[in-house]
Amino acid sequence: MAQQHLDPTAGPVAGDALAAYLRAQATEFLRALRQHRETGGAAAVNGSKEAVDAARSLRRSARRISGTLHTFRPLLDEGWSEAMRPELAWLSGTLAREHAYGARQERLLAALHRLSGSAAFPSQASSEVRAEKGQLTVGAAKAGALLERQLTLARTRAHSAALQALGSSRFHAVADNVAVLASEVPLTAAATTAATTATATASAGLKPLAAAAEDRLCDAVTGLPLVTAGHPYNSEALVHGLSADTAPQPQDAPWHQVRLLLRLHRYAREVLFGDEVRLDVRLLNAGKALDRHRDAAEAAAAAASAARTPRIAPATAYALGVLHADQRHEVEAARFTFQRAWMRETVGTP
Amino acid sequence: MAQQHLDPTAGPVAGDALAAYLRAQATEFLRALRQHRETGGAAAVNGSKEAVDAARSLRRSARRISGTLHTFRPLLDEGWSEAMRPELAWLSGTLAREHAYGARQERLLAALHRLSGSAAFPSQASSEVRAEKGQLTVGAAKAGALLERQLTLARTRAHSAALQALGSSRFHAVADNVAVLASEVPLTAAATTAATTATATASAGLKPLAAAAEDRLCDAVTGLPLVTAGHPYNSEALVHGLSADTAPQPQDAPWHQVRLLLRLHRYAREVLFGDEVRLDVRLLNAGKALDRHRDAAEAAAAAASAARTPRIAPATAYALGVLHADQRHEVEAARFTFQRAWMRETVGTP
Repeated sequence: MAQQHLDPTAGPVAGDALAAYLRAQATEFLRALRQHRETGGAAAVNGSKEAVDAARSLRRSARRISGTLHTFRPLLDEGWSEAMRPELAWLSGTLAREHAYGARQERLLAALHRLSGSAAFPSQASSEVRAEKGQLTVGAAKAGALLERQLTLARTRAHSAALQALGSSRFHAVADNVAVLASEVPLTAAATTAATTATATASAGLKPLAAAAEDRLCDAVTGLPLVTAGHPYNSEALVHGLSADTAPQPQDAPWHQVRLLLRLHRYAREVLFGDEVRLDVRLLNAGKALDRHRDAAEAAAAAASAARTPRIAPATAYALGVLHADQRHEVEAARFTFQRAWMRETVGTP
Repeated sequence: MAQQHLDPTAGPVAGDALAAYLRAQATEFLRALRQHRETGGAAAVNGSKEAVDAARSLRRSARRISGTLHTFRPLLDEGWSEAMRPELAWLSGTLAREHAYGARQERLLAALHRLSGSAAFPSQASSEVRAEKGQLTVGAAKAGALLERQLTLARTRAHSAALQALGSSRFHAVADNVAVLASEVPLTAAATTAATTATATASAGLKPLAAAAEDRLCDAVTGLPLVTAGHPYNSEALVHGLSADTAPQPQDAPWHQVRLLLRLHRYAREVLFGDEVRLDVRLLNAGKALDRHRDAAEAAAAAASAARTPRIAPATAYALGVLHADQRHEVEAARFTFQRAWMRETVGTP
């Protein structure tokens, strides 16, 4: 971290800050990997807190390395980084799945309790215990049990897949490459030239590349239906709530895309400013809203999917319908929140 | 109408404006009744436009007479008006039911189409025709057919009940009383004394009684959870979306009560200002929001009730669950709209 520069334009070489950031993330990746192995990530679905933390750190640094390789690719050895990115995406995707199923289950069961007017949510209690308390209707209790069964199964499978991935030769190749990164970042010649001395290399400097990432984000946001989203209760998110199409809602895709671009922008800022990166409340709130958007959209899809289980009781299907609509309204609410966060700060800082 | 006074405080007798208003409403009631009989209100559920208009006019004037008897009761013969009010309420309630079932059916089928991403809504086409167009899923089409069946049955029964009521001796007694009102309003001695000449009668004047009706409205609004309602996407309306209780949601009751008090306030203004009554946009918007609140709440209850039909398919139940949640969100949206309408004008006119 000693090689970071607070102002990269004043600094000598564009590649220095980039190399320092990638080295730090690679080191963090290797540390998390060690921790994951030591704390028995292999144990069970409900792993220890340490194992969960280690898996999160692994995902976190894998995403940052991958995003940074993407945003600053002109400064890095092309063949090397182009080969590495899909492998990192595979890894973080595989690791993320287990976490996502767990979070989705928690979100849906909490929503079922909220919709039953029951504030208490004993997350570890079995659905039988909850039903006995008379807090849930038969339909809600059965829907909860069905979702718990389906998502626990999916989570267990994702856990096995993650363990298998971490033991695979494919993963070891990734880990080897990250180890290389921790010691020697493969910069291009342009990156190792002082950015301020040559016009030719200036375009390949950190700042223009980070600015390009921000531009891609802003362009994508411009394409969002923000006027509609800013109008409360626009009923847009549930417009295909009963359509025959079982595929993910196409209206969600541009929002998911903005979520990814926002993340790349955030990582680029981390590269630029290092440890001195300011907390940008706008980015934070906008990002949180888009996370909520994604989570609610996937939870809604899970409820709809559970409702297609053969031979379920009508009361179960009814509860799943209410749950689906509720989560689609969460999607709408998240878009509203994003719109507010994004517009307010744009006005505030002209 | 010649006896109306534009400013009742400056006018000679409090009872004059009141008597003129009641006479006008009674005349309108008798005219609508004649029209209803002539245009064959007895014909069918889908009566002619004239029959529908006549029934609406009947309800409209019955509500106004009843509300006015209530608000200005110190100015009217107590025994007479206390005997008449429940009869008018019975009549307008009986007449309203047929209309309500029709409107509810239309609202729910339109929502099913909206939720299926189908903009077109052929209100007269059978559900088979709509399903053939491939616009609705099997579940949505079946839910629509079930609701259509149940609400058409309810509407037909309400229509018969209304016809039976209009032919009953109970109704003839009401009509006789309204005919009396059209020629001679039974005012008390206080009402026929000049309001401005005696302090004792001033309290029984039109203005204080109308102000008391407005106070009751404002007090009731103060009791509403307006802070929550003004916060978009508060998820409050669906909080009992899956509770076992099949009774109407208790959280709706204070809003329904405000709706009735708002109506009484509006009628009192009509009495005070006669034909010169200003259009109050605030009251108009607030009233519309509360009408929508009531309609959506009842539509949500109808969807939930249909879902309890024995032996329905899970896909039907699922669609009804989505529909129920959608209508409860309409309830929430209506509360938001009411809050905005009410607060904006309060701030605007201090």
